[in-house]
Amino acid sequence: MTFGIDDLPVRDELRGKSPYGAPQLDVPVRLNTNENPYPLPEALVERITERVREAARDLNRYPDRDAVELRTGLAEYLTKTTGHPLDVSNVWAANGSNEVIQQLLQTFGGPGRTAIGFEPSYSMHGLIARGTGTGWISGPRHDDFTIDVPAAERAIAEHRPDVVFVTTPNNPTGNAVPAETVLALHDAAQAAKPSMVVVDEAYIEFSHGASLLPLLDGRPNLVISRTMSKAFGAAGLRLGYLAAHPAVVDAVQLVRLPYHLSAVTQATALAALEHTDTLLKYVEQLKAERDRLVAELRAVGYEVTESDANFVQFGRFADSHATWRKILDRGVLVRDNGVPGWLRVTAGTPQENDAFLDAVREVKKEQST
Amino acid sequence: MTFGIDDLPVRDELRGKSPYGAPQLDVPVRLNTNENPYPLPEALVERITERVREAARDLNRYPDRDAVELRTGLAEYLTKTTGHPLDVSNVWAANGSNEVIQQLLQTFGGPGRTAIGFEPSYSMHGLIARGTGTGWISGPRHDDFTIDVPAAERAIAEHRPDVVFVTTPNNPTGNAVPAETVLALHDAAQAAKPSMVVVDEAYIEFSHGASLLPLLDGRPNLVISRTMSKAFGAAGLRLGYLAAHPAVVDAVQLVRLPYHLSAVTQATALAALEHTDTLLKYVEQLKAERDRLVAELRAVGYEVTESDANFVQFGRFADSHATWRKILDRGVLVRDNGVPGWLRVTAGTPQENDAFLDAVREVKKEQST
Repeated sequence: MTFGIDDLPVRDELRGKSPYGAPQLDVPVRLNTNENPYPLPEALVERITERVREAARDLNRYPDRDAVELRTGLAEYLTKTTGHPLDVSNVWAANGSNEVIQQLLQTFGGPGRTAIGFEPSYSMHGLIARGTGTGWISGPRHDDFTIDVPAAERAIAEHRPDVVFVTTPNNPTGNAVPAETVLALHDAAQAAKPSMVVVDEAYIEFSHGASLLPLLDGRPNLVISRTMSKAFGAAGLRLGYLAAHPAVVDAVQLVRLPYHLSAVTQATALAALEHTDTLLKYVEQLKAERDRLVAELRAVGYEVTESDANFVQFGRFADSHATWRKILDRGVLVRDNGVPGWLRVTAGTPQENDAFLDAVREVKKEQST
Repeated sequence: MTFGIDDLPVRDELRGKSPYGAPQLDVPVRLNTNENPYPLPEALVERITERVREAARDLNRYPDRDAVELRTGLAEYLTKTTGHPLDVSNVWAANGSNEVIQQLLQTFGGPGRTAIGFEPSYSMHGLIARGTGTGWISGPRHDDFTIDVPAAERAIAEHRPDVVFVTTPNNPTGNAVPAETVLALHDAAQAAKPSMVVVDEAYIEFSHGASLLPLLDGRPNLVISRTMSKAFGAAGLRLGYLAAHPAVVDAVQLVRLPYHLSAVTQATALAALEHTDTLLKYVEQLKAERDRLVAELRAVGYEVTESDANFVQFGRFADSHATWRKILDRGVLVRDNGVPGWLRVTAGTPQENDAFLDAVREVKKEQST
């Protein structure tokens, strides 16, 4: 026997676990991780290299610990796209929205505290809860993947969680959560105990509806989390951020690692913010492709969950993993998120989506005969 | 009263605390955060922009989650500079050694567990312990800041910590820890309970002595942590790493946030690794300047702790904060780490060090009259 993890004094709750992450397979069409299929425009690539060159000349110095220029730029982007005025004091940024969520749970969750999410949803919420010692409560959904508000309110009243997660549009199901649902959960949570409500809007730019950012007004216990991975086409950049009352921004700084955000990350993100208008045009193309995927999948005979994201959940399958494999055999990688009976496909380029639709038509034919 | 942190449901242990970080003041000579004073050579700046341009063209995709090329490069650097053969399976990287330490504490510390450090030492060890819910034990040192081995062994036997931190060269005192001390603490820790020993070698390239990396042989519970912030002159990059048994590398992946290391960070670090030889020449210059600071401070009449780092601890002062202020008034920013009677100065360029020495000579004269 070689020496392995189990021979080390790792925490009990980590024993037997596997690292989170989709299989990284070398496949012609990869529609499994909700990446934006469009590479950054060449003008932006050049702007990134300019800004990074400048940052590299000062790389022997620590970066701006408070990332003031970047947070100001993100606040301007949010103000412009939602009409809700924010400034640097309302915004915090970190290495991916995962780190934002980790900082929130270190501040407001942690040992002896609990967080609730309504599953299936973004599974990192629960995994980061585990990683921060926060107890995790799996809240209910209806069969159509909308949140069962009365049941959610009862769960909140019973468990009195310290942090409530709401993902809208929800991942991996795709459906948006109405503002009144978020308000109901917020009020239920505050009625139970002083607590935080984190609305994860990673995919909001793809939604038919509006951001819930204006709900921040008068609700200092509400947090909106965002990312540049999807709409900005910058999954490789790892830049997540949050918008909230300035007190929340002050509070997460008690747990953030000093200088957590590198100078090259700040420089690259600032360059991307200069090209927002171009990037949002790609978002419009992807929304159209997403709507096409929904329509064509239904035409093929699949059930499809309403989608406000850059991906579509489709089913139902007696054995979703076997279907995942059949699609993969045709050169298209989609995601099996472990939701029984369902798979998730990311909206790619028109060509990638055609390849995917061809594959699922074949699979459907095969499974019908 | 405006709404503030205390009105939010933050964890009790965070109440009344301030974010960690040295004052970022606009002063002509900044010798307070142990940065490398030499900007990266222009050839390296160009190589960084080339590598980042390439990465930016693929930025819509998630980065290599396992950072294989980077970890391979770091393993080669360690092998070359220590003579101890390592490969990718022995190395893990994250956003600064702070994140490496956070991942280690999430894996091997956390709620219900404890870590010990011998203080004064790098204060982030204790702060990250707090941030991860790990109990913190402050172990003893002799008055000359060497580790009191019998007392340390007794503290380990009494508290049975899950994680033992040893910083060598120690920050903020500057002195290196002998291999036999680390071995004694390692053996005491293992005798008490299965536990991890983390040797923080952030400043090891500046040491008169050798890295303790060869101690990894046959000791799977030992971890060496490193950074590119100091010897590589890349504090702005935020790249920390560890070397250990492959089982440790597997274990931290259970808690790492997926895709924690951005594509631009990986590209920049890989460029810096190509220029190791040049960067290590700067290290030699800084070691000579550090030795000069030690000699001249003693000539002025100060007490100086032996230094194997790129900084020097000097004293003693009846009121070290008042002396810090007097030096600052002369345009030189040094660090008051809260070690009573002592201050810390980073080795800068010869000109910066001259400015610092002029300032402290004046202060000494003033305080003697």
